Amino acid sequence: MVRGRVSRLSVRDVRFPTSLGGHGSDAMHTDPDYSAAYVIIETDAEDGLKGYGITFTLGKGTEVVVCAVNALAHHVLNKDLKDIVGDFRGFYRQLTSDGQLRWIGPEKGVVHLATAAVLNAVWDLWAKQEGKPLWKLLVDMDPRTLVSCIDFRYITDVLTEEDAYEILQKGQVGKKEREGHMLAHGYPAYTTSCAWLGYSDDTLKQVGMWTWFCRQAECREDKTSPFVDLVQSMRENGSRCCVWGALFKPGLFAGRERRPLCRKSQCLPKQRIELNYKTSVFHRFKVKVGADVQDDMRRCRLIRDMIGPENTLMMDANQRWDVPEAVEWMSKLAEFKPLWIEEPTSPDDILGHAAISKALVPLGIGVATGEQCHNRVIFKQLLQANALQFLQIDSCRLGSVNENLSVLLMAKKFEIPVCPHAGGVGLCELVQHLIIFDYISVSASLENRMCEYVDHLHEHFKYPVKIRQASYMPPMDAGYSTEMKEESVKKHQYPDGEVWKKLLATQEN
Amino acid sequence: MVRGRVSRLSVRDVRFPTSLGGHGSDAMHTDPDYSAAYVIIETDAEDGLKGYGITFTLGKGTEVVVCAVNALAHHVLNKDLKDIVGDFRGFYRQLTSDGQLRWIGPEKGVVHLATAAVLNAVWDLWAKQEGKPLWKLLVDMDPRTLVSCIDFRYITDVLTEEDAYEILQKGQVGKKEREGHMLAHGYPAYTTSCAWLGYSDDTLKQVGMWTWFCRQAECREDKTSPFVDLVQSMRENGSRCCVWGALFKPGLFAGRERRPLCRKSQCLPKQRIELNYKTSVFHRFKVKVGADVQDDMRRCRLIRDMIGPENTLMMDANQRWDVPEAVEWMSKLAEFKPLWIEEPTSPDDILGHAAISKALVPLGIGVATGEQCHNRVIFKQLLQANALQFLQIDSCRLGSVNENLSVLLMAKKFEIPVCPHAGGVGLCELVQHLIIFDYISVSASLENRMCEYVDHLHEHFKYPVKIRQASYMPPMDAGYSTEMKEESVKKHQYPDGEVWKKLLATQEN
Repeated sequence: MVRGRVSRLSVRDVRFPTSLGGHGSDAMHTDPDYSAAYVIIETDAEDGLKGYGITFTLGKGTEVVVCAVNALAHHVLNKDLKDIVGDFRGFYRQLTSDGQLRWIGPEKGVVHLATAAVLNAVWDLWAKQEGKPLWKLLVDMDPRTLVSCIDFRYITDVLTEEDAYEILQKGQVGKKEREGHMLAHGYPAYTTSCAWLGYSDDTLKQVGMWTWFCRQAECREDKTSPFVDLVQSMRENGSRCCVWGALFKPGLFAGRERRPLCRKSQCLPKQRIELNYKTSVFHRFKVKVGADVQDDMRRCRLIRDMIGPENTLMMDANQRWDVPEAVEWMSKLAEFKPLWIEEPTSPDDILGHAAISKALVPLGIGVATGEQCHNRVIFKQLLQANALQFLQIDSCRLGSVNENLSVLLMAKKFEIPVCPHAGGVGLCELVQHLIIFDYISVSASLENRMCEYVDHLHEHFKYPVKIRQASYMPPMDAGYSTEMKEESVKKHQYPDGEVWKKLLATQEN
Repeated sequence: MVRGRVSRLSVRDVRFPTSLGGHGSDAMHTDPDYSAAYVIIETDAEDGLKGYGITFTLGKGTEVVVCAVNALAHHVLNKDLKDIVGDFRGFYRQLTSDGQLRWIGPEKGVVHLATAAVLNAVWDLWAKQEGKPLWKLLVDMDPRTLVSCIDFRYITDVLTEEDAYEILQKGQVGKKEREGHMLAHGYPAYTTSCAWLGYSDDTLKQVGMWTWFCRQAECREDKTSPFVDLVQSMRENGSRCCVWGALFKPGLFAGRERRPLCRKSQCLPKQRIELNYKTSVFHRFKVKVGADVQDDMRRCRLIRDMIGPENTLMMDANQRWDVPEAVEWMSKLAEFKPLWIEEPTSPDDILGHAAISKALVPLGIGVATGEQCHNRVIFKQLLQANALQFLQIDSCRLGSVNENLSVLLMAKKFEIPVCPHAGGVGLCELVQHLIIFDYISVSASLENRMCEYVDHLHEHFKYPVKIRQASYMPPMDAGYSTEMKEESVKKHQYPDGEVWKKLLATQEN
């Protein structure tokens, strides 16, 4: 079925000026601009199909990843697609072990992000040629072929090829039923709300911010919700700073120093909020912590009071702490019963996460991490060291589907639930395929499992995610949902797209 | 003393076509070209001094690091040097925690290599303004100032600022004597010999290759040695392939798939070798292993027989193995009494190194690693987990002197000897400063300690290393020995330098 020889690989630097939302040009240098290195692979096949791949970035530095993609391009050009996917392990090894490029990795940082973008495009093209959404391509693939896509180098002490094959063979049992379940109900999502950090307690209490953020997913489906009215009214009256920023900035501070958004609570059109609108939909809430422990305690108390003991609260520290600090801090927040503390410290610190887990698990708090874990070797060790209770894969940091497969299988071996990281640009679009495959063919369980969701920039994708009843509905279009609208790409290309030309000109004046 | 505002930062892509040495253009894509991203910082001070910084690369990918340097440049430009070094910890944090760039690291791979190049230039400039070689700047610096250069984030569970200060305070005792010892005798070096992997046992036995490689360092000092004659004769008769490649390619396969050099032993001018020339100089020998266990055993037996039980043998696997394989393989090589096995597996695998150490230390074999360990958090864990017995810092992969200081101090706390990685382009020039400082102010010991040395590309540096009696003699010129000869840079700039223009033209034809 697979056909064509790769005749062209192009890469574009696409940036959305998310840091600007009402803050003016100064903010451009302090806030991240959600961006992507966007790869397009073309073949000489007559079908005219193209493969699209992205890796997510935060603005500056996208050009560095673009440069790395170009450095990898010669490995892809003039190759037959059937030779690539026919020996996908070999091809993965070729990209990640390039004699000269390996030195500036290996399998980490810029070169690995570039590898992800290139391989994501290959997977998109493969799935398109097979006429299937990626999750379905994986679900239908026989275990031997799946296993042949994985590079087991450096993980055989935990997962051999035979182990992987056995797990996938077991996963065949009940597969049809689980696929049916996904098609009917989708994969459970939770939404991230970073923004309320900047609001006063009063604001929080009065307007029930939590319900807004948690309803974002709903609102995309239900255009008559008060949420949509709210956004519309704010657009009209120009009060962009608080709510607008809040709505469109969740996830923005992941992995960075946290700065509160605007504190002008007066611009919140409180009257417009229907507090109880579909509150039954979301039961899982994530709050950012780590700036000030007293402040965190007060806010967590408030939130726990509001959501009640029956709902789930998660906390995210975005690598803010050293190890002893993380333990001390979270011991103080334990009374608010968080399900997990996310990224308590450096993503490289396996033993640190293990020490934190050891201290916090007895308090009922799990450790979650992964969005900045740079390869399967790190995930292997996090699992070996009992360093996490929730594993957060990322579709654009690891070496595409190939490396994520190995992590899903290792997680299954250790019976650690996978709760993917998403948000950014396209992360939701991509990772939904992986987690739906995980449920159908690997984990066979939804217990303690959920996939992050942020309602952000989906409008730029040709096949945006579909959320219903707080769940990701399995995409039905062929491919990996990676393709962006050409119009969006053109406008947001950096620095020559229309949007940036204007912004940069404004900045110069 | 520190003066000037940074008025210009430029960066150049300098590549030496080391992969070509006699092999023709095909080899260009399979062998590494020793290269550097080369940063030059200028100020508006009237002294006209410039800071030079490098980071080492292997050819392709240098342009990616150059791109990352440019992305970091705005943090340096228009800053007063006294503000930079006056709050060096803050400046380090600013570079490594840039809100947008951090995502494509953090503190690893391309962005961290770029950070190293920039900070190496700052340190060079600082030392030049103080009129001291870098090692002496560090030795003379008071402990509080030294400590203020270090970012302790993520390592306080092992080393706090107070711990560091105490170690440095203790290091004041006997400092003068140790400085005198360095000036008189230098820091002990060992040379790396990768190339004999490709030779037959007979060749090895007949010509005693090991003495050649171990004498390279000597020969630079002693222009009348038989070694120099040998090279000259080979140059004249054109028999470049074996010995020439061997002499100028040590270290070449670090971190990569190993391929033997040419096996044509007949081109070795055996007669010219004086086997016993200064054999008393070197007592430490490193051999590459990992391709074939039977072959390794035979060769190691041969080498051990030749060097006798009293000399030191080290082995280097260049990340070749998975964990169980490393243990099994090295158990078989244990009878040849290697001091260490270097890079037995992935540089990210802390628990893997710990498992290998646990298995091999009872056999008398230590584990050495570090040249591809990407930051202080990895080194911290290697120490915490008893995962290494020899710690190999690298002057261009970690965040310059700042981050290396933290690693030297952690190693001291765990009493693990530091044996720096060197070779490449300029790695010897830079790291000698760090290890000489380490001896004088931190470790106060030479036991089980030595610094790698490879006689390679030193001729392109303005202040090349000086080796005497197999020891690094402390550099006396002001700065960090990072400055290259402008003529060399011009010639080897990629792709526009004279050398590359010719090569690329040849390749096109």
